[in-house]
Amino acid sequence: MLEVSQRGQAMPWSPFRKLTPYADAAKRQGVVVHHLNIGQPDIETPPAVLAAVQQADIRVLEYSPSGGHDSYRRKLAGYYQGVGLDVTADDILITAGGSEAILFAFLACLNPGDEVIIPEPFYGAYPSFAVAAGVRIVPVPAYLEQDYALPPIAEMERVITPRTRAVLICNPNNPTGYVYSRAELEQVRELCLRHHLFLLSDEAYREFSYDAPALSALHLPGLDQHVVLLDTISKRYSACGARLGALVTKNKALAEAALKFAQMRVSPPALAQLLGEAATELPATYFDTTKAEYQRRRDLLVARLRAMQGVRCPVPSGAFYVMAELPVEDTAAFAQWLLEEFRHEGQTLMISPATGFYATPGRGRREARLAYVRHADVLHRAMDCLALALEQYPGRRE
Amino acid sequence: MLEVSQRGQAMPWSPFRKLTPYADAAKRQGVVVHHLNIGQPDIETPPAVLAAVQQADIRVLEYSPSGGHDSYRRKLAGYYQGVGLDVTADDILITAGGSEAILFAFLACLNPGDEVIIPEPFYGAYPSFAVAAGVRIVPVPAYLEQDYALPPIAEMERVITPRTRAVLICNPNNPTGYVYSRAELEQVRELCLRHHLFLLSDEAYREFSYDAPALSALHLPGLDQHVVLLDTISKRYSACGARLGALVTKNKALAEAALKFAQMRVSPPALAQLLGEAATELPATYFDTTKAEYQRRRDLLVARLRAMQGVRCPVPSGAFYVMAELPVEDTAAFAQWLLEEFRHEGQTLMISPATGFYATPGRGRREARLAYVRHADVLHRAMDCLALALEQYPGRRE
Repeated sequence: MLEVSQRGQAMPWSPFRKLTPYADAAKRQGVVVHHLNIGQPDIETPPAVLAAVQQADIRVLEYSPSGGHDSYRRKLAGYYQGVGLDVTADDILITAGGSEAILFAFLACLNPGDEVIIPEPFYGAYPSFAVAAGVRIVPVPAYLEQDYALPPIAEMERVITPRTRAVLICNPNNPTGYVYSRAELEQVRELCLRHHLFLLSDEAYREFSYDAPALSALHLPGLDQHVVLLDTISKRYSACGARLGALVTKNKALAEAALKFAQMRVSPPALAQLLGEAATELPATYFDTTKAEYQRRRDLLVARLRAMQGVRCPVPSGAFYVMAELPVEDTAAFAQWLLEEFRHEGQTLMISPATGFYATPGRGRREARLAYVRHADVLHRAMDCLALALEQYPGRRE
Repeated sequence: MLEVSQRGQAMPWSPFRKLTPYADAAKRQGVVVHHLNIGQPDIETPPAVLAAVQQADIRVLEYSPSGGHDSYRRKLAGYYQGVGLDVTADDILITAGGSEAILFAFLACLNPGDEVIIPEPFYGAYPSFAVAAGVRIVPVPAYLEQDYALPPIAEMERVITPRTRAVLICNPNNPTGYVYSRAELEQVRELCLRHHLFLLSDEAYREFSYDAPALSALHLPGLDQHVVLLDTISKRYSACGARLGALVTKNKALAEAALKFAQMRVSPPALAQLLGEAATELPATYFDTTKAEYQRRRDLLVARLRAMQGVRCPVPSGAFYVMAELPVEDTAAFAQWLLEEFRHEGQTLMISPATGFYATPGRGRREARLAYVRHADVLHRAMDCLALALEQYPGRRE
C-alpha cells in the first residue's frame, strides 16, 4: 500500500513546529520576537576559522575519507588530549554534526527493540533518533527541586531490563544546564560496568562549564570499552551550520561498526572539516572569552527570572540554557499566547515549552527552557517582556 | 551485553576496503595508481560556485531551516523546471548528500522487514542503507548481454510479495551507465501503479546522458504520489565533498515524514547550500562542456576496452562508468594482483570488482566497473596498463 511507513508516521515533529507559525505571524506584524527558544548563539564564528574555508585553495571539492580527513582527526585528537583525554586519531570518526554521531551510535550499539536509559528532561531530538533506529527510550526523572541532578542511581537500575543496552547522558546537560559531578559520573560508571551497558555521552557543551571543567565520560577509569563520546563543533565554535561532529570510542569493534555506517554515506562535509581543523588551532583564550560572555548572560537571566514572582529556576552550571518553572498551568499555551497576544513596546519572546524534553506524559508542563544565546541587552528586553507577560497572562496560576 | 548490535555486525564494509591497503602499499613503493575505481571526478568544481562560499559575508555560521534555505529551494526548483519537471520549492527537502536522501526515503517509505526491488547490479551503498533501515533488497538481474537494460518487467513483478513497498531505480545507472528508455520507464510506472509501490528514483547522474536527455521519474504522468526523487549535486557540479543533495516528492504525506527525519538532525550543511545555490546560476553551457568531456572519455575507454581480447562491454549512454567483463575468473583477485604485482612503467590501476554491485551470490565475478573520471591521458595510460596486465595475468581465462 502506498502510505508512509509506521516509523515515518511515529516520527515526532520538532517541538517548535506548533509555535513557529505564530512567531512568523508576529514578525509579519512588525513585532520583534526574541528567540530564547533555540540554541543558536549570536556569538560570531571565529573569523580565523571561517577564513580557513574562505581562503582555501580548492580546485576539486572531493570526497574526504569516510572517517574524516586524517589531518583533522589528528588535530582533533590533540584538542581532546588538551582536555585530558587519552584519545588518538584512530579513536575518532568525523560525522555530519553531532546528530549523525547520535544516529550511528544508536544503530551500532542497539538492536531494534532495545532500550536506552536517559535521565529526563533530555535533548528534544533523542526521541526522533530512537524512532529512526527503532529503539526505545526509557526515561528516568530528574527534578527541578534537585537542580536536575542525576536521578538516584537506584532509579536507573530499577528500569534495567534484558533489553537495556545503553545509558545516554548529556553533560553539560541540554536542556537543564546541569553539570554532572565526579561522584555522579562514578555511579553511572559502576552501573554501566555492573550491567554491561554502553555509555553514550553527549558532550556538545563541554567547553561551557562555569564552575570547574566538565568531566568527560572518557575521563572515567576502566570504562574505555563502554564509552561512546558524541561530540560536535556547533556550540563550541558557534558554527551550528557547519554540521561537523565526531563519534569517539576506544572500543575497536564499535569503532569498526561506526565506520561501516560512515562508509554508507561516503564522506562527512569537506568544507566544514577545513573549518574544524582551523578551530583546533584557536588560542586557548578563545574559550575563556566565550565562556565569560555566556556566564554573564546566565547570571543576568537567572537574576531576572528569580526576581519574578512565582518563577523558580536552578542556577545552571553549564551549557547555555535555563530551565524555569513558570506560574502557569501549561507553558505551551503560554508560549503561544506570548507570540499571538502579548506585546511590549513592539516586542515579545519565544520560549521552549519543556514538554518537548520529556517522554513521560504530563511532565514538564509548567517548565520552559530559555537559551541565553543572545546579547545581554536582548536578554534584558526579553526578560522585561516575560515579567510583564506573567503579570498580564489570563492563565496565571497563583 | 556489551557487543556491537546485530545490524552493526551485518553492515557491509565498503567494497574498496579490501583493496585499499594494497593501493596504499603500491603508492608507498612509488607506484602511480590510476584510480578508475571510484566516482570522484577530476573535473574542477566551477570556480564561480566555490566563490559563492569563499566570498560570502558570514558573521555567524547558523543552522539553516531543516528542509534547507528557502532561497536555495526556490532556485533548485528553477533548475528542475529547466529540465521539464513540475517541481516547486515545497516539493524539495535539502539533504546532506544524496546519501541522506536515500536513508530518509528508506525510513519514510518502508517499515522494518519490508522489501524494495532493485535491478541488479546496483550502487554499492544501497545494501548498507537497507541494513541501517532494516529493509530487504530484492534484486532482479540485468545482464551485460542486454547492455544492462531494465530486466523484463515480468521478472520484477514475479518477486513482488505482500512486503514489497517500493522499486528503486538509478537512472542514468551507476554502475552500468545504462539510461532507461521512455518505454522502460513506462513499464516501471505501470508496475508501481498496479501494485501501489513507491518509485525511488536515484538521478545523481541526470546531466550525464549522451544520446538524449535522461527522463526523470517525475516526467512520468500520473505517478506523482509514488515518486521520490533522490538527488545530489556531487556529480553534477563535481562537488562530491559538499555533501548536498535533495529528496523531491509531490506526495505531501511523504514530504512531511521526510521533513520530520530532517528535523531530527536540525539542518543540512550551510556552507554547501551557498555553493548549491550558486550552482543553479551557472550558464546552460556548463553541462555542454562537462558532458562533452565525459563523452570523449567514454568513447576512449570503450574503444580501448573493446580492443582488448576477451573483454566485453556495452557502450554506456550515461553516467561516467563502464561495466566490463574481463577474461578472468574473479575480478577481485585480478584487482588485487594489479595493485600487488603488476607494474608498467611505474604505474598500475585500481578497478572496482563488480561483486560489490550485486546482491546475488556469485553474480558479477567476471565484471568490473571502471570510472572515466580522469583526464584522457590518464585513461590511456591506465588502459595501457590493463591491456598488458590482462596478457600477463597468470589467472587469465581463455
